[in-house]
Amino acid sequence: MSKSDWLDAATATWPECREFLADSPVAILPLGATEQHGPHLPQNTDTVIAEALATGVARQSSGLLLPSVQVGYSWSWRDYPGTLTFSFDTFREVVKDLARSVYRGGCRALMTLSGHGANPGPLKMTARELVDELNLRVLNVFYPGLDEVMADAESPQWAPMNFHAEEFETSLMLYLKPDQVRMDRAVREYPPRSADYEMSTLPLGSLSRSGVFGDATVASAEKGERWFHACVARMARVWTEFLSVPDDG
Amino acid sequence: MSKSDWLDAATATWPECREFLADSPVAILPLGATEQHGPHLPQNTDTVIAEALATGVARQSSGLLLPSVQVGYSWSWRDYPGTLTFSFDTFREVVKDLARSVYRGGCRALMTLSGHGANPGPLKMTARELVDELNLRVLNVFYPGLDEVMADAESPQWAPMNFHAEEFETSLMLYLKPDQVRMDRAVREYPPRSADYEMSTLPLGSLSRSGVFGDATVASAEKGERWFHACVARMARVWTEFLSVPDDG
Amino acid sequence: MSKSDWLDAATATWPECREFLADSPVAILPLGATEQHGPHLPQNTDTVIAEALATGVARQSSGLLLPSVQVGYSWSWRDYPGTLTFSFDTFREVVKDLARSVYRGGCRALMTLSGHGANPGPLKMTARELVDELNLRVLNVFYPGLDEVMADAESPQWAPMNFHAEEFETSLMLYLKPDQVRMDRAVREYPPRSADYEMSTLPLGSLSRSGVFGDATVASAEKGERWFHACVARMARVWTEFLSVPDDG
Amino acid sequence: MSKSDWLDAATATWPECREFLADSPVAILPLGATEQHGPHLPQNTDTVIAEALATGVARQSSGLLLPSVQVGYSWSWRDYPGTLTFSFDTFREVVKDLARSVYRGGCRALMTLSGHGANPGPLKMTARELVDELNLRVLNVFYPGLDEVMADAESPQWAPMNFHAEEFETSLMLYLKPDQVRMDRAVREYPPRSADYEMSTLPLGSLSRSGVFGDATVASAEKGERWFHACVARMARVWTEFLSVPDDG
Amino acid sequence: MSKSDWLDAATATWPECREFLADSPVAILPLGATEQHGPHLPQNTDTVIAEALATGVARQSSGLLLPSVQVGYSWSWRDYPGTLTFSFDTFREVVKDLARSVYRGGCRALMTLSGHGANPGPLKMTARELVDELNLRVLNVFYPGLDEVMADAESPQWAPMNFHAEEFETSLMLYLKPDQVRMDRAVREYPPRSADYEMSTLPLGSLSRSGVFGDATVASAEKGERWFHACVARMARVWTEFLSVPDDG
Amino acid sequence: MSKSDWLDAATATWPECREFLADSPVAILPLGATEQHGPHLPQNTDTVIAEALATGVARQSSGLLLPSVQVGYSWSWRDYPGTLTFSFDTFREVVKDLARSVYRGGCRALMTLSGHGANPGPLKMTARELVDELNLRVLNVFYPGLDEVMADAESPQWAPMNFHAEEFETSLMLYLKPDQVRMDRAVREYPPRSADYEMSTLPLGSLSRSGVFGDATVASAEKGERWFHACVARMARVWTEFLSVPDDG
Repeated sequence: MSKSDWLDAATATWPECREFLADSPVAILPLGATEQHGPHLPQNTDTVIAEALATGVARQSSGLLLPSVQVGYSWSWRDYPGTLTFSFDTFREVVKDLARSVYRGGCRALMTLSGHGANPGPLKMTARELVDELNLRVLNVFYPGLDEVMADAESPQWAPMNFHAEEFETSLMLYLKPDQVRMDRAVREYPPRSADYEMSTLPLGSLSRSGVFGDATVASAEKGERWFHACVARMARVWTEFLSVPDDG
Repeated sequence: MSKSDWLDAATATWPECREFLADSPVAILPLGATEQHGPHLPQNTDTVIAEALATGVARQSSGLLLPSVQVGYSWSWRDYPGTLTFSFDTFREVVKDLARSVYRGGCRALMTLSGHGANPGPLKMTARELVDELNLRVLNVFYPGLDEVMADAESPQWAPMNFHAEEFETSLMLYLKPDQVRMDRAVREYPPRSADYEMSTLPLGSLSRSGVFGDATVASAEKGERWFHACVARMARVWTEFLSVPDDG
Repeated sequence: MSKSDWLDAATATWPECREFLADSPVAILPLGATEQHGPHLPQNTDTVIAEALATGVARQSSGLLLPSVQVGYSWSWRDYPGTLTFSFDTFREVVKDLARSVYRGGCRALMTLSGHGANPGPLKMTARELVDELNLRVLNVFYPGLDEVMADAESPQWAPMNFHAEEFETSLMLYLKPDQVRMDRAVREYPPRSADYEMSTLPLGSLSRSGVFGDATVASAEKGERWFHACVARMARVWTEFLSVPDDG
Repeated sequence: MSKSDWLDAATATWPECREFLADSPVAILPLGATEQHGPHLPQNTDTVIAEALATGVARQSSGLLLPSVQVGYSWSWRDYPGTLTFSFDTFREVVKDLARSVYRGGCRALMTLSGHGANPGPLKMTARELVDELNLRVLNVFYPGLDEVMADAESPQWAPMNFHAEEFETSLMLYLKPDQVRMDRAVREYPPRSADYEMSTLPLGSLSRSGVFGDATVASAEKGERWFHACVARMARVWTEFLSVPDDG
Repeated sequence: MSKSDWLDAATATWPECREFLADSPVAILPLGATEQHGPHLPQNTDTVIAEALATGVARQSSGLLLPSVQVGYSWSWRDYPGTLTFSFDTFREVVKDLARSVYRGGCRALMTLSGHGANPGPLKMTARELVDELNLRVLNVFYPGLDEVMADAESPQWAPMNFHAEEFETSLMLYLKPDQVRMDRAVREYPPRSADYEMSTLPLGSLSRSGVFGDATVASAEKGERWFHACVARMARVWTEFLSVPDDG
Repeated sequence: MSKSDWLDAATATWPECREFLADSPVAILPLGATEQHGPHLPQNTDTVIAEALATGVARQSSGLLLPSVQVGYSWSWRDYPGTLTFSFDTFREVVKDLARSVYRGGCRALMTLSGHGANPGPLKMTARELVDELNLRVLNVFYPGLDEVMADAESPQWAPMNFHAEEFETSLMLYLKPDQVRMDRAVREYPPRSADYEMSTLPLGSLSRSGVFGDATVASAEKGERWFHACVARMARVWTEFLSVPDDG
């Protein structure tokens, strides 16, 4: 499989899709969000990042790149005006219908690539229901090995694998969409964590005033570029390995 | 209300959304599709057009521009590899969740703007269920007055308000995304119409070989530009009038 | 197929149904409504007409005549006391269960015949879901070629294919159930049409005072008889053609 | 409340319904079936009987008579060609939507009157869900005191309150629709009862060859008339008492 | 099949379950309740009894004894603090998922054994849906032949097969869990029965003050022991016969 | 609040529940599983542990102890005969119905205590839907601070917070139910972990032969006792703190 073995399903024609899936029955689905990302980042931050990562992975590995789902499971921010969210049920059905569509077209392996930290939970259950229904292998990817990637970050994560609109995301956006980042409004906020965080139904939104969980002020495009490519490389490796082994049935 | 009274919810920050909805509690949702559009147009044709129209309407009238839903109700093309489709139920829930999200943020009037001809049917029922649930006015727009707009078209529609990847859509794409149109592959195809068309469950896909329903070869960017602006003007007028009258309760 | 090749599933015995479906695995389902029809027509107008048309079609063509569904999708009139309505979901499941029942008994082609103008929308999606589930062909019929049939009407339709309790329906009822029509109360009303009619969620009920959309005063039994038979003939022709071609799979 | 305080919602006009419900906010819903009734009775036997009983009750007591639901919960006979059945879920939603419709129109008490022995089970749960949702009192009636009514029957019931197409139903039909009863084909059949009847999922249909559970040969119109009126009287009494007591909330 | 051919799925290991189901693909599911049982009996009375009966049946006949479902369909008591209830839908899905689980493990016949009188209604419909989905035979058991068993009871049942926290249940608990019965608080209460009992949606809870329907004061452990064993014997016989006949498919 | 402020809803009477909830409107729901736990532990291991922990927490803090849900979300083990599992949807509805039941009885804060590692994922979404529906605070507890508790374990966890039928669970069972642990069959197994573990839909069951993920051979009752009490203390502290702060809205 050559590195150029990918296709953008949005801008391709259907005969190109047909040909692609006949040769490479695999697809990549970027899953973003439209939700508050502090006073300095656009609401589509997770979507922008997921699309860019998915394109990078498709280029390095393989796959029919599906159009991103621009809304995710954003219950935690539902009280911020502007935030859009799917319920769990809607999110699940959206992913299932897209999987069914590409399966009908011949696809047999699907990678979901989340740019939003609340998507993987619902995706886990969704993927299980999908493999019980279809002969489709599903891989849900959300920043594998991020701790190593971010080893040189200047600011700590608010909580393990829990970061939002801070150094990491802001850096990636400074690399990917510099004109949409308003660094003059970037802030540093580490909202208090109660002992029962993760256990309670406290929406994150009620903890933070700015919407930032971490330190956005130390972000840079240079770090963003480096981290972005490190993430792509890790994701592409996981995906390539997943495709190289026989079905896990 | 000034012409500049619009905001892109995707690239805006949440404080900007909050401020916008507090002043102008209205939103516009572009509804596209990812489906076959013949051998010469990209699969996202309906999404590209819906987004462009919605942006135009927002600029001329008002509204929080929501990120487009890039997949629609495309049952008719479900056998073309590459086509993605939501079931009626998923489509309905997607629109409802987006409406609920903006309603929570303060929005009280929503325009859906479809670029895909099979969306308005499901939208009609969806909108009714929404107004029974929320104090939200909903307007579903799909090319109002298109017959007049296209009065100077060179080729006939395949069926009333039933056109696909032909002169109109190709022209709009030649204007909006010229580099994604492969005019060298454009064809003219008028698939046979059985007497029971519209009554049967015959998928459109089984009628056409190319996926084109009409004549794509006579399209031009000039017509596309003219038609696009005529459509925007009509849609903006309908929307403005809708907003100007009191709630139809 | 002889003209007598039909059977009324309601008044037949089950051995007769078994024999019929073994020979002619096709069925006809009349879909009516119980909803306001102005001050002069009974609420079951659409049901009466659908049953009569379906019986006529069965006689001229063929089919197991199923008992009519006497309630339809009547959201638009839900605020008129006496109007009964199914939600979209209930309407869909009712039709699906009836289709599944006759399919289990051997039926392989089903015609739905609507007497109510708001049924065909939900039926379109319902039929698609049915053919994805069962090896059953479905034809949804709602006054094919009505414009030609009504060419000699004295009053205009309120909107294209949008008429209610007016010249056409009143005439048919004067022919079919003259004792249930109170012509002394018949009125002429053409409620105002806003520019966004069909796009908004405005219930029809809020437009009209009488519930009439058109002119009921010019109706006559003579026209009703003529139009009724013209409609039956057209519907029977569509149905016969549908049955004569191989499965559109 | 006078004995003439009833109205047929099917043949009435909507202003009449409005007036009726404003005065008498109560309604009666006949629930029938379309299912095998042996070689001698029409499939709509339960519907015919339920409608006649409901009309009788409305006349003697009060109520807006709703159009009958002509299909019931007939799982047990689903393998007899011609039999139509709703799933439990569809049956429940049909009844709920009708209840919601009349409730919207002002109705506050609803009697369901079943002519089919498998309807009361699902109705019990349906009614409970309805009263949890609406401020509507619901009474489900299925032959109260039938043992006393039928004390002079010549043939025994197959099982307690379990009879089908036998002396009772055939007699009622001989009284109500004599021309639809083919007494020359009437049979006597008492299918074997296993010890686990009622506990197993054995469909009744696999027990009987004719579809008769009891003795149809001893039926007579005279008994039918007597029993019919006795049933109406008992049902009307229960309904009147139900309406006379304050809400059981 | 020897009498020792049973296994407790809760305390067994999975290899033991695998071996058991390979030999004896049958299972028993006790269905209890957690609901008010008067001032003298614990809320889990129905669960305790169902578990004990199921264990007895398993010992005398055969089956993989599943863990009891400790909550039932207890709508009637939902206003007594402490009472837990599943909706019909949840109850149905719980039973279905358990049936699907054991079916996946090889089970082909399932007995549900209810200790709560409101479970059999929902179970009937549930079992029918199950046999339409799976190749699984289902038997729903609720005190077969109880009238004969209780022939020597001192107090009458409140209504046929309608008893609650009275002589029978109290006696069984005095035998099974004597330390959990507070006989000093036992009462005798025969709430009034309206004529429309069973027809209306009156919750039982609004009839009784104590929660007792019958006479708990005459209960004894001796009767409980006798009745318990008589019930087990009858249930085991029904189950054994059910297993001995070929599939009723 | 005294340490004795708890009540077992299963063995209590309803007047006791009423009184308890009036004083202490809080409840604890143990969530177990019935699933493979290796060759040496009973299938109800997670249920036994959850019940014991919940009882301990109730004693140390407060709460109406609800009967445990003995089946969980055990998709990963669904191919081991004997394993029972709820789908996500069923699991969600079970928890919701129990929450609704106690809420109706007056409860305003609910702790779910999971003994099974796959329950917390579905619980997170379930709890969010609950707090959107009811004025009920929900806390989902699954071994808070377990790393510290198990600091002196002899064998490593297979994966972070991923352990099954190994040193920890076996030790707890040796303390709680020593007669149900067959230490002679205890094994040590560390199944291979693929790079995409957690991302793929590989069921755990296909990784392990024994069903053990860790080392069961080094378990001891002494460790079990110590760890159990440490867990109870931590859980009780979290719960007490949760109850002591005002509603997090």
